[in-house]
Amino acid sequence: MKELISRIEDLDKGQVKKASKKILKEIGDLQYQMFAQKEHSVLIILQGLDASGKDGLVRDLLEYCNPVGLSVTSFKKPTAEEYAHDFLWRIHKHTPGKGMIQVFVRSHYEDILVPSVEGYIPSDIIEKRYDLINQFEKMILHNGTRILKFYMCVSQEKQEERLRERITNPEKHWKHNDGDWDTLRKREQYLTVYRQIFERCNVVPWEFIPSDSNWQKTWVSANILLKTLHSMNLEWPELVSEKYGK
Amino acid sequence: MKELISRIEDLDKGQVKKASKKILKEIGDLQYQMFAQKEHSVLIILQGLDASGKDGLVRDLLEYCNPVGLSVTSFKKPTAEEYAHDFLWRIHKHTPGKGMIQVFVRSHYEDILVPSVEGYIPSDIIEKRYDLINQFEKMILHNGTRILKFYMCVSQEKQEERLRERITNPEKHWKHNDGDWDTLRKREQYLTVYRQIFERCNVVPWEFIPSDSNWQKTWVSANILLKTLHSMNLEWPELVSEKYGK
Repeated sequence: MKELISRIEDLDKGQVKKASKKILKEIGDLQYQMFAQKEHSVLIILQGLDASGKDGLVRDLLEYCNPVGLSVTSFKKPTAEEYAHDFLWRIHKHTPGKGMIQVFVRSHYEDILVPSVEGYIPSDIIEKRYDLINQFEKMILHNGTRILKFYMCVSQEKQEERLRERITNPEKHWKHNDGDWDTLRKREQYLTVYRQIFERCNVVPWEFIPSDSNWQKTWVSANILLKTLHSMNLEWPELVSEKYGK
Repeated sequence: MKELISRIEDLDKGQVKKASKKILKEIGDLQYQMFAQKEHSVLIILQGLDASGKDGLVRDLLEYCNPVGLSVTSFKKPTAEEYAHDFLWRIHKHTPGKGMIQVFVRSHYEDILVPSVEGYIPSDIIEKRYDLINQFEKMILHNGTRILKFYMCVSQEKQEERLRERITNPEKHWKHNDGDWDTLRKREQYLTVYRQIFERCNVVPWEFIPSDSNWQKTWVSANILLKTLHSMNLEWPELVSEKYGK
């Protein structure tokens, strides 16, 4: 992560944005090829503190993708029906089918984070969730799905600035939630649990996305996604036809 | 529809593409405002013969929308579970929640079209579906969802050209299906059923999208979607806060 950030600081914002656009277009082309081929799938898990820019990344990263091959699920407070099941029940419903890119905005990691900090679930149950998540991710990988786990790093200063903007900028009012200031006060507690997660849940390693500026987060995450798509050796499917086939 | 087409023919392709881009960006802005407000929703139903360009329209029309507020469902041959239910069961599952734009690539209209032409369902059952669809769409409208029904007009010549391209162009092989040539031979039968649908299912009037060229279909459909979004008088939500509110 440090290496990436220092590389970025050497670069010019305008140059990076131009280079990102090229990569994003290539991602769009490859995504449609993956959709055509229906052999591979990608699950992108976005985690980060409030105001780390998750929704914005969804828009920027997938700008040139065809929405027919995309699905985005934002996990909020579970519904009564979801609570009545194990915590992975609602998550499993949304894993991607072949050909698809699925984005989780927040995910099963919230089911460790929030109860750990807020303390409303016994610690032995939370403890067990680390294992259950690792097993779950292994199973998804086993099915051939590529998982990308992005932790969006936002500094305390930037986080506060963005939360304040939600009060002052009318276009951001809808994002405001009084509770976010409580969460900000618990920033260190959340980061402590995140460090546990990074250490114990790395069946798939975490990618650390510098997210204080949008052009940096787009650039870093686009490079990772492009690399993943390249590694699949995607090809246009051959003609399947009784009349015109080989 | 004729009026629209003749207006387009007077225009220069380059000019239209430029004007479309401006409109598509405005659609993106309004979509995010709708997502923020969570009071309105839009259901776009795409119908058209094979190779009329439905998937391509999804990409072009929604290029600047944030996928967090989008969902696209392509209805294929029903699964065994879907067959075991009434034909609107799987459709209803995917109607948009407030704040969302949902696209149906094909829809409940296939449940009239295909059995009417292929004749595998008794005609009195098919007959009843016209009413059931009208009732269903009324119910969705009653919930405040805007429905746009796009019929994508493709000429026989262009349809044949595109089906041939699926055989000759390796990037299009995946779209080829021997059965599409049978369907092409039944083009007039399908159009006859479509005319019935246009006449009898107009709780929401159909929009006829000239789809022989991509820039035309984008231009016409983007104008319709923009007009719909404008008609909602979208506004950024007010601040909801016990600490910082009015």
